[in-house]
Amino acid sequence: MIVRVDLMISLDGFATTTDITPEKPFGDDWGRLTASYVATRTFRERVFHDNSGAGTTGLDDAYALAYFENTGAEIMGAGKFGLHNYPDDPDWKGWWGDEPPFHCPVFVLTHNPRPTFKLSDTTFHFIDANIEDAMAQATAAAGGKDVRIGGGPTTVRAFLEADLVDHLHVAIAPIVLGSGVRLWDNQRGLETRLPTVKSEVAESGTIHLTFAR
Amino acid sequence: MIVRVDLMISLDGFATTTDITPEKPFGDDWGRLTASYVATRTFRERVFHDNSGAGTTGLDDAYALAYFENTGAEIMGAGKFGLHNYPDDPDWKGWWGDEPPFHCPVFVLTHNPRPTFKLSDTTFHFIDANIEDAMAQATAAAGGKDVRIGGGPTTVRAFLEADLVDHLHVAIAPIVLGSGVRLWDNQRGLETRLPTVKSEVAESGTIHLTFAR
Repeated sequence: MIVRVDLMISLDGFATTTDITPEKPFGDDWGRLTASYVATRTFRERVFHDNSGAGTTGLDDAYALAYFENTGAEIMGAGKFGLHNYPDDPDWKGWWGDEPPFHCPVFVLTHNPRPTFKLSDTTFHFIDANIEDAMAQATAAAGGKDVRIGGGPTTVRAFLEADLVDHLHVAIAPIVLGSGVRLWDNQRGLETRLPTVKSEVAESGTIHLTFAR
Repeated sequence: MIVRVDLMISLDGFATTTDITPEKPFGDDWGRLTASYVATRTFRERVFHDNSGAGTTGLDDAYALAYFENTGAEIMGAGKFGLHNYPDDPDWKGWWGDEPPFHCPVFVLTHNPRPTFKLSDTTFHFIDANIEDAMAQATAAAGGKDVRIGGGPTTVRAFLEADLVDHLHVAIAPIVLGSGVRLWDNQRGLETRLPTVKSEVAESGTIHLTFAR
């Protein structure tokens, strides 16, 4: 069992985007940041439930496939689940529809917990816990499989700073966003804690960078 | 004639380092940031005057070689020349010894100009000019060859923001420094002004990223 992170960032290190308007709740930048991942056959199958075989099958897809392998539980921040966008909607069930792509217990970190619920084979738990306690709960729920820290960047940084992450995969899109939340803040020396570094460039131009123990 | 930039940065985008002590005026980080470049055969020949044939000959060396090709003039900030480190030494002649690796006119941007001097075939001019005037002087001196913006990051950013750069090569070392001066600040949309993007990974793990018109 290891603890894994996969995150997409811009060249300037931003894992969130800021060009959000009422008409475009995700903005245009989010689409640009995630375009090479969304284009993969794996993403289309697992998230869009498109089994036509469409989508890219190169290096981006290999990383997309690895993302879904052997995950036993996921921990995510309240922002990723959408609690910051829909704080007053008790019926908000996340962005992922009736068949979320997690297929495992998901632990959402929040100071305002709400009842556990299940959608298909994904169970969402809402816990007001520090990261060590969250990790203990997720590890127990994962049944020997890997625990994924799903994001966003503030949540990922907290687990990196506590040296709780064993495998960090970052997909860097060759675009400059200029603002957002940075992944690398306060991460000096990351390469000494996770010294096995691998870099590859996909056909899309996306740079895949992996840090591991 | 085009305007070129080559710069080494960390994963978190820093092109300067901050771990400087009286005993180590460059610190340890500068060596880590530039290690793959300093290791090339080209750097050893051109900067260390080591003609033994030692040094790496892979992708890092190909970029190092391109760095020295067809440059007719260089513009650099006062900090790169060393005026911030030795402001009170009128005899300071730069870090590069009696045979600087430029072999062309160099224009140092400073609010405190000093007399022009020549070392081997490099002439250093000190000019109190805005970037457009500096570019005009360097272009005239380059005699049809390329103009290089040598750094540091603050100087490079100013020329990028004025859309005066035609070709930007960034070598990203897979290390996280945590502090310094960032290259990417205020560069949103760079990829639309320089849309020809190429990424390659060298044997050293260094990611070579090129933006061109």
